Formats: sequence, structure tokens, C-alpha cells
Amino acid sequence: MNMNPCDIIRKKRFGGRLSEQEIRAFVQGVVDGGFADYQTSALLMAICINGMDDQETYDLTMAMAHSGDTLDLSDIVGVKADKHSTGGVGDTTSLILVPLVACCGVKMAKMSGRGLGFTGGTLDKLESIPGLSIDRDIDAFKDQVNRVGCAIIGQTAELAPADKVLYALRDVTATVDCLPLVVSSILSKKLAAGCDVVVLDVKAGSGAIMDTEEKSRQLAETMVRIGNMSGKKFSALITDMDQPLGNYIGNALEVEEAIDVLAGRVQGELKAVSLTLGAHILRNAGVVKDVPEGIAMLEEKISSGEGLKKLSEMIAAQGGDARVAFDTSLLPKAKYLVDVAADRDGYVTGMTTSDIGNAARLLGAGRLHKTDVLDLSVGLVMKVRVGDKVKKGEALCTLHAGDGSDQAGAAELIKRSIVIGDEKPEARPLIRAVVE
Amino acid sequence: MNMNPCDIIRKKRFGGRLSEQEIRAFVQGVVDGGFADYQTSALLMAICINGMDDQETYDLTMAMAHSGDTLDLSDIVGVKADKHSTGGVGDTTSLILVPLVACCGVKMAKMSGRGLGFTGGTLDKLESIPGLSIDRDIDAFKDQVNRVGCAIIGQTAELAPADKVLYALRDVTATVDCLPLVVSSILSKKLAAGCDVVVLDVKAGSGAIMDTEEKSRQLAETMVRIGNMSGKKFSALITDMDQPLGNYIGNALEVEEAIDVLAGRVQGELKAVSLTLGAHILRNAGVVKDVPEGIAMLEEKISSGEGLKKLSEMIAAQGGDARVAFDTSLLPKAKYLVDVAADRDGYVTGMTTSDIGNAARLLGAGRLHKTDVLDLSVGLVMKVRVGDKVKKGEALCTLHAGDGSDQAGAAELIKRSIVIGDEKPEARPLIRAVVE
Repeated sequence: MNMNPCDIIRKKRFGGRLSEQEIRAFVQGVVDGGFADYQTSALLMAICINGMDDQETYDLTMAMAHSGDTLDLSDIVGVKADKHSTGGVGDTTSLILVPLVACCGVKMAKMSGRGLGFTGGTLDKLESIPGLSIDRDIDAFKDQVNRVGCAIIGQTAELAPADKVLYALRDVTATVDCLPLVVSSILSKKLAAGCDVVVLDVKAGSGAIMDTEEKSRQLAETMVRIGNMSGKKFSALITDMDQPLGNYIGNALEVEEAIDVLAGRVQGELKAVSLTLGAHILRNAGVVKDVPEGIAMLEEKISSGEGLKKLSEMIAAQGGDARVAFDTSLLPKAKYLVDVAADRDGYVTGMTTSDIGNAARLLGAGRLHKTDVLDLSVGLVMKVRVGDKVKKGEALCTLHAGDGSDQAGAAELIKRSIVIGDEKPEARPLIRAVVE
Repeated sequence: MNMNPCDIIRKKRFGGRLSEQEIRAFVQGVVDGGFADYQTSALLMAICINGMDDQETYDLTMAMAHSGDTLDLSDIVGVKADKHSTGGVGDTTSLILVPLVACCGVKMAKMSGRGLGFTGGTLDKLESIPGLSIDRDIDAFKDQVNRVGCAIIGQTAELAPADKVLYALRDVTATVDCLPLVVSSILSKKLAAGCDVVVLDVKAGSGAIMDTEEKSRQLAETMVRIGNMSGKKFSALITDMDQPLGNYIGNALEVEEAIDVLAGRVQGELKAVSLTLGAHILRNAGVVKDVPEGIAMLEEKISSGEGLKKLSEMIAAQGGDARVAFDTSLLPKAKYLVDVAADRDGYVTGMTTSDIGNAARLLGAGRLHKTDVLDLSVGLVMKVRVGDKVKKGEALCTLHAGDGSDQAGAAELIKRSIVIGDEKPEARPLIRAVVE
């Protein structure tokens, strides 16, 4: 394929449809330098403004998925499943649903990233478990999934390298929030990772990648449509991010809350979303006939203690201290606990979730730059949820801080982000929509 | 101004109006690196698709005009005028109108470029005159204009350096043909060059930068509107480029035809456009009350021989052999003359001007790459014009070739570009519109 970048750029500039061949030439050029970065960013902008139809988005996704290594998981017995979240605050569903789903016979083969943001990624959270390693080669990964039923490791293979280049450029050219680009970025990595069933958790609200619920819905619908075109089984939930999903925000803190859920000690939104996502996997894998049956099966894995036992097995298989699953006091603990108090009586009428996430970051739980070092013990524990009645002086949240934490900055952000008013707000649904 | 490139890019991506401050920050960033090239190209694409209104285009033009040196021509006595052509084939109006207008008391202070294309730029043409130099410093330039009335030199000052960066990027990102970008590119250099009166020759037809007459008209209208916002006096002609303007195409060849026009030996389209452009300058400078009066005054400068004498003075002032004005045999001559013959009887119904230009380039008259070396003696002389009756075997054109010429390629292009049909085509106006 010897195509001129300018011809491809020009076509999209004037609103044309790119052919599969043109899209492949573009992605190939992104990886091998045939497209200079200034040409790539010009095309990205033209895509942002003039859009891509489903076929183009699918072709872009597939070209990106095949731009590097693709995993062959065929020597893992049974249905292989994966889950992806567009990212939120207090969003540790993976640690809950991975062991629970594995207990039901579906193999959870998950490669995760670290990412930048409010808190660390799933890998950072896992590394707060003493001894646990997320570095496993592909053979050890497959072996563990076959033996234990689940594994969560760091990316060893070079999956979808075109996405790395594109994402870095999008980040500095105001072209991040563009539907076909978001869809192809997420799906290309999932498709390269080789699972049969994928469930997507698309966040809506003040802590979400898409700034309106309508856009979150479009994103979910497009991802499911494009994902299913590839022959895999995709479902998506649109879930609330107008407040943190769980009450524990931080790395070790989120592991602790996940264990509390698996142990049956904690109910609420984090558990509800985790089980619903897991139930969609079970339904798409053919293990149950519908989602309610799936939720019931997963509830049973909590009450029987199998889920927690499976987590301990996964921790052990990855070299970690398996006792953590039964004794969260073994997790790293923050040095200072400081309450942030309400400055008036009233109802919690809303939260700016992104500010709460940023507060956790100021404490040291998340990265602003790739090279930032995390304090895995720090974070915050929310004491209130939207709709709760609070009294002046009552704790809204407890900061778990370390010596490197910006306590004042975090407290300031928390106060600003939690709105207290006179009227009890209307309850909003946790799961805003299901796309299948 | 410490503005985030992404904020500016995002605003234009979503169709917003950029403020003067944002546009200045952009142009400043283009020059000092605050905008990386991939950010610049993303913004250029957003401008191409979402457009710019007049105020934005004006702000962009002024910011680019002030991105480097600006010439102060105030020590040149009288009205200073300049002329710009969007570029065509056989388009050597400058060499004709510059001395003629100077004879009428308006100072022609012209800085020219070399450019890429079918033939060399005005500078290359001038350099075919033995001894002539286009390298003059600003003081010598102004002195010559004061003394002789005219000068055409290469750019010594760094005029509108932002345009260089932008143009290089536009060329490789399919963002050349975009009205606000074309307008600001042309006008910023003209405004930085400091003249009071500017006449623009916008080409329409198969050899023109804009691919439709409607777009050429928009370009002309926008340039005059934006140019006049700056307080200078702009006019524009839209002229035919559906065939070469003059019959001589090449560097020395075009000097020869210009001299023939100034000597009164050649009439036709080249002369008509040159005199009309010159008459607009005289009218805008207040020397004559209208264009017909201007044309009559310029005709008189031909018949009196003053125009040719002024050219010889300008040549002499720039170190060239002034006898050339009166003896074109002193110009470099091509080694081989080869006729390209008609292969059927009929009427010339049309020409693809760009192919004729490319034929001249294949002979060695123009550059494809900046570093290509020209043969100033080569080119071609057209023997027919659109509407002419031709007989099979009759010469359509004479190639003036050298040892480095691709004669076969040039002949092939010429044959393909000249269409011979049965019906005499309708005559089309040479000057399609005037914008003032």
C-alpha cells in the first residue's frame, strides 16, 4: 500500500468516507512513520469534525488491533472474558467481578494498564498487596488462567501500538473526546487481547470521559455495535459517576473495599455495578440465561465465601500474600487520618466527582505525570453519599494521608466538590442504561 | 500571552470564533515553538473545515505580517505600489507593468520570491538578464526606487516568517486551498513589505490555485476586503488562466516577450492584463481618475518608448546588461528548437494550462524541488491560442530545449493538454471580474 498521506487527509477534510485500504495505510503509517505526526494530527482533527461511519470506525479499530501483537488465548480452556471501564473514581469493580465470575467457570484473562488519573490503575491497586507481582509472561499468564480461572497482569505484549501514538497526539491536540477515536482506542486493545466476551462499563456524570449522558450513551452503543461486528460478544452498561462508585478511593483502600464486598460485609453501588457487569459476562458466555440469574449466581459466590477464596488463590498465584483476602490489616495503612467536616446542615445534593478524584491525587494516590510515584496507602474514605442528610461539623470524608500528601489542597477540593443544599435531591438510577 | 494551544484548537474544532488574542498567541507559538507542528496542523485543519470570519482572517493576517520584520518605506518619496499574482503560466505581467507604472510617477518597490512551479519566479526570469543581481540590501533597494522609480529584488528582510512555517505544514497536510489561510498567507507578506497600494491578479481556470471560478472570486473579494481593513488600497482582477497568458513560457523567453510588449511589438492578452493591473495601481494611487484613463496613459508610455527605457534603467541599476531591453538576442538561447504538431484539423477548443506549465518544467524551466537547478534558456513558445483554427501537421508550439530537457515528456504533455475539436469554441472574457 503506497498511498499519499495528503490524499487520505484531503478526503476526510472534505467529508469523504475512508476505505478500508486507506485506513490501513493510515494506521500502518502511524506505526512506521509514513504519516508524520503533523499529518496524523491533521487527519485526527478532520475525523473529529467530519466523523466516521460504523464501517470506517470498525476498519480503524481492526487496523489498530492488528498494528502490533495479538494474543492467541486458544490454549485456555473455555470462554475467555474481559471487562473495560472508561474510568471513574472509587471504581474497583474488576477486583470484585474477576474472582466471582471465575468461580462460575468463565475464564477472566485480564491485562490492565497503569494510566494517569485520580488514582492508580488496577495494577497499582493490586501492587498494594504485599508480594504480588503483575509481571507475568504470556505462558505463565495463560497457565494461571487455566489453573486458577483468573489473572490480572500488566501488558507484556505490545498490544495496539498505533493507539499509543494516536493517544499521545490526541492528548495534545484537543482531539480526545471524539467518538470514533475513543471507540477504536478502547476496542482495538480489547480485540488484540483475544477474549471472546467483553463487558464495558461506560461512566456518565461529572467524573466521566464524555461530558454528557447523551454522549456516554452514544459511546456505549457505538462500542457494542462495532465490537459485535468483530464477531465477539460485547455488552455495555452506562453507570453513574455523579459521585464516586465506592466509598474508598485510593489504591490499598480500594483493595480493602473490594475484599469487604467479596466478604459480604459491604453492600451498595460498588457491589451492584460489579455484579451486574459480571452477570452480563455470564449471560454472554452462555452460563446463565439472563442477567438476574447471573446476579443471583454471583451473590451465591459471595455468601458461600468462594469469591473471596478465589481472590486469595489469584493473589497467591501472582506471588502475593494470600492472607490479605481474610485480613485487610495486612494492607499498607496511611499515617494520618483527618476528617473533612460539613460547614452547614442540609442534604448532600451533588458531588463533582472529578474534584474528589483530584483530591485523592493530591494526597498521592494518583499520577499527574507518568513518572509520579504513588503512595499506595493514601486516599480518602467518603462518609456521605448524594441524598444523605448531614449536620454541620459532621465528617463528609476522611483523608488517609502520608508525609507527601497535600492535605490542605485535598480538603479544599473535597469541600468545594460536595454540595450541601436544603432539599433532598431526587434519587438517580445507578445503572442508567444497558446496551447489548 | 500564556495560552494553552489545546484550548485554542478546541475552540476552533467546535466552530468557535478565535479572538485577536488567541490568534496572536497561535502565530507567536508558530514562530517560537509554543505550538508544536502537530498542534499547528490540527488547528489548520479545524480552520479549513470550520472557517474563519473576516475579523479572524484580518487578525490572522496582521499577526502573521508582524511575526518578523516589517519594512518602513517612508523614506521613498511618493506613493509606493506592489502587485501580486496567485501564479499562472506565461504570466510575466510584473516585468511589463513595473517600468510602465514607474514612468507615471508611482514608485514600484517589489520584493519577489522564487517559488516552485511551472517556471521560475520573477527573480529567476530577471536573472536570465546577463549580469543582473536581485540581491540588494534595504537601503540600496530604497535608494534605487527613489532614483529610478522601480526595483524588483529578492526578499532580504525576514518578512512574515510565520507564513513560511505555516505554508510548509499546509503543503503536507492537505490544507493549502483554504480561503482564510490563502488570504492571510498572501496579504501578510504584502503588508509586511510596506506598500500603500496593492493590486492582486487572481487567476481562474485550469492553471489556477483555486479550482473553480467561484472560489477564485471569493479569494479576490476576501483579499480586497481584508486588505482594505488594514488601511491600504487593494484592488483585484480575476483573470483567465484557461490558457497561458503570454505565448512565451520559460525564464529568458518571458523576459523576451515582456520586452516585445514594452517595445510595442506584441499585443494580446499578456499586454491587456498587464496594462489593466497597472491602470488599477495608477487609479488607486490617485494618478488617474479611472482605469481607462490609466490604460491610455500606460499605452502612451509604450508608444513613446519610455517604458522600455525605464526597464533598461532598472536593469542597469541592478548591475545587468541594459542593452538587453533593445536587443533580446543578448538573452540566453536554447540549444534545440522542436515543433510539436497538431495531429488533426480543427479548432483549439481548450487547454489544460497546468499541463503546459508542467511541460515547461520538464524542459528545465521550473522547479519541482527547491534545490532543482533551472536552465534559464529553455521553455516553450505557443503558436496557437484557444479558438484558433489549425491544420494537421501545423505547429502547436515550439519546444526550446537544452541537453537536460525531457523533450519527449514535454511534447507528450503538450499534445495531451491542447484539445482540438470540430466547433469553434465561444470566446471567454480575459478579465473575468474586477474587485475593488
